[in-house]
Amino acid sequence: MTRFALTVEFDGRPFMGWQRQAHGPSVQQAIEEAAFSITGERCVLHAAGRTDAGVHGLAMRAHFDIDKPLAPFRLMEGLNALLRPDPVAVLACEIVPDDWHARFSCIGRSYIYRIANRRAPLTIEAGLAWRVVQPLNHAAMHEAAQILVGLHDFTTFRSVQCQSASPVKTLDRLDVERQGEHVLIHAAARSFLHHQVRSMVGCLALVGMGKWQATDMRAALEARDRQTLGLNAPPDGLYFVSASYPDEEAENE
Amino acid sequence: MTRFALTVEFDGRPFMGWQRQAHGPSVQQAIEEAAFSITGERCVLHAAGRTDAGVHGLAMRAHFDIDKPLAPFRLMEGLNALLRPDPVAVLACEIVPDDWHARFSCIGRSYIYRIANRRAPLTIEAGLAWRVVQPLNHAAMHEAAQILVGLHDFTTFRSVQCQSASPVKTLDRLDVERQGEHVLIHAAARSFLHHQVRSMVGCLALVGMGKWQATDMRAALEARDRQTLGLNAPPDGLYFVSASYPDEEAENE
Repeated sequence: MTRFALTVEFDGRPFMGWQRQAHGPSVQQAIEEAAFSITGERCVLHAAGRTDAGVHGLAMRAHFDIDKPLAPFRLMEGLNALLRPDPVAVLACEIVPDDWHARFSCIGRSYIYRIANRRAPLTIEAGLAWRVVQPLNHAAMHEAAQILVGLHDFTTFRSVQCQSASPVKTLDRLDVERQGEHVLIHAAARSFLHHQVRSMVGCLALVGMGKWQATDMRAALEARDRQTLGLNAPPDGLYFVSASYPDEEAENE
Repeated sequence: MTRFALTVEFDGRPFMGWQRQAHGPSVQQAIEEAAFSITGERCVLHAAGRTDAGVHGLAMRAHFDIDKPLAPFRLMEGLNALLRPDPVAVLACEIVPDDWHARFSCIGRSYIYRIANRRAPLTIEAGLAWRVVQPLNHAAMHEAAQILVGLHDFTTFRSVQCQSASPVKTLDRLDVERQGEHVLIHAAARSFLHHQVRSMVGCLALVGMGKWQATDMRAALEARDRQTLGLNAPPDGLYFVSASYPDEEAENE
């Protein structure tokens, strides 16, 4: 048995999410089926994160165990050939120790959320960004974002379906920057709650529109009540950027 | 009669090109039909450039004449509402003088060509960039590109279907830069021949791969013979970026 770690890029638009679902296509299923075609083995792919329907991945990390002897490069090439025309690509494939786990060994995760701040409907970016028509004050958003950085009970910013044992997490980074008509939000933490990034981004957008002040963000955080959430941003603009592991260089965005 | 100038963004993937075709959908037809729904008038949309099937537009300029009195903002909003779900959006709409012509008044056009220089198949960028697997030396490409800048007979870099009266054009800019795994080629001129940007990019890619030297680029240019073209790049990576007109500030990319 050999454990292979994959780095996976995918366009989330045609998928029900990363995780295998009974009701529709998933990235996990696409890769597992491609692997089965190569190995004849029914393996289970474990990932650093479980992205929702419509969320994209730039470098998701995942692993599975395969009995058949295979060179990592050939496995990667075979998977990429079989994954077509699904918008899923294996960017890297390597052999890792048997105790390396894509989810449990992961010590850091980062996301980018992409807002297209414009009036016109999206064309090339349709499904790849959240269009916000009202002009956004990105400086006010960045300032309000700093309220959320640190160790907090994020109950307000957590889906009611969230299965995490605790709502208390440490948010390491939440930076907001403007690039032309785009407002980009960078989020990093050891781990996130379900819908946490989208919930934080939704409230930051309210701040950017002037509908919320920084004090409203603080009140929402301190309420520890999902009912006080201002807005949950759509999946379109969310990208899983990187996962980091001990003994690896920090990933750059 | 009022002449309206439009700035149009479009994703070229589902279209046979900008220009109206008997055999399939075009950007021109999509906009003309949306305008007909608003005005009841059969107007003809004239554009600064005619892009091929699969080529994208970030800010194509175009105009048409409408008898019905309409405010530009309402026309733009109406067009955008009717264009859905086609990936075409009107970014700006303004009234221009009757002698302003999107094509004939245009004094400068610019394109960007986007190469994804990587081994893995494209996912999010599929159809939006040209994947080149061989590592590209962008500095060598930029150097060779300068051979093409200036006044030249571009017969080698011209489609056999090109309808331009003369193959002699002045290329104002052809810059190559790397941004991470992407190699971007910026081209600007008063006007271009049919397939000129894609033909120049194809040959620059050969230089980047080391298959061509700068001297091969010079020989191809001086041959004035389409048969000496090394490679025509696919439409996927080509974006019409901007058109400029007298009395307008220069467009920034």
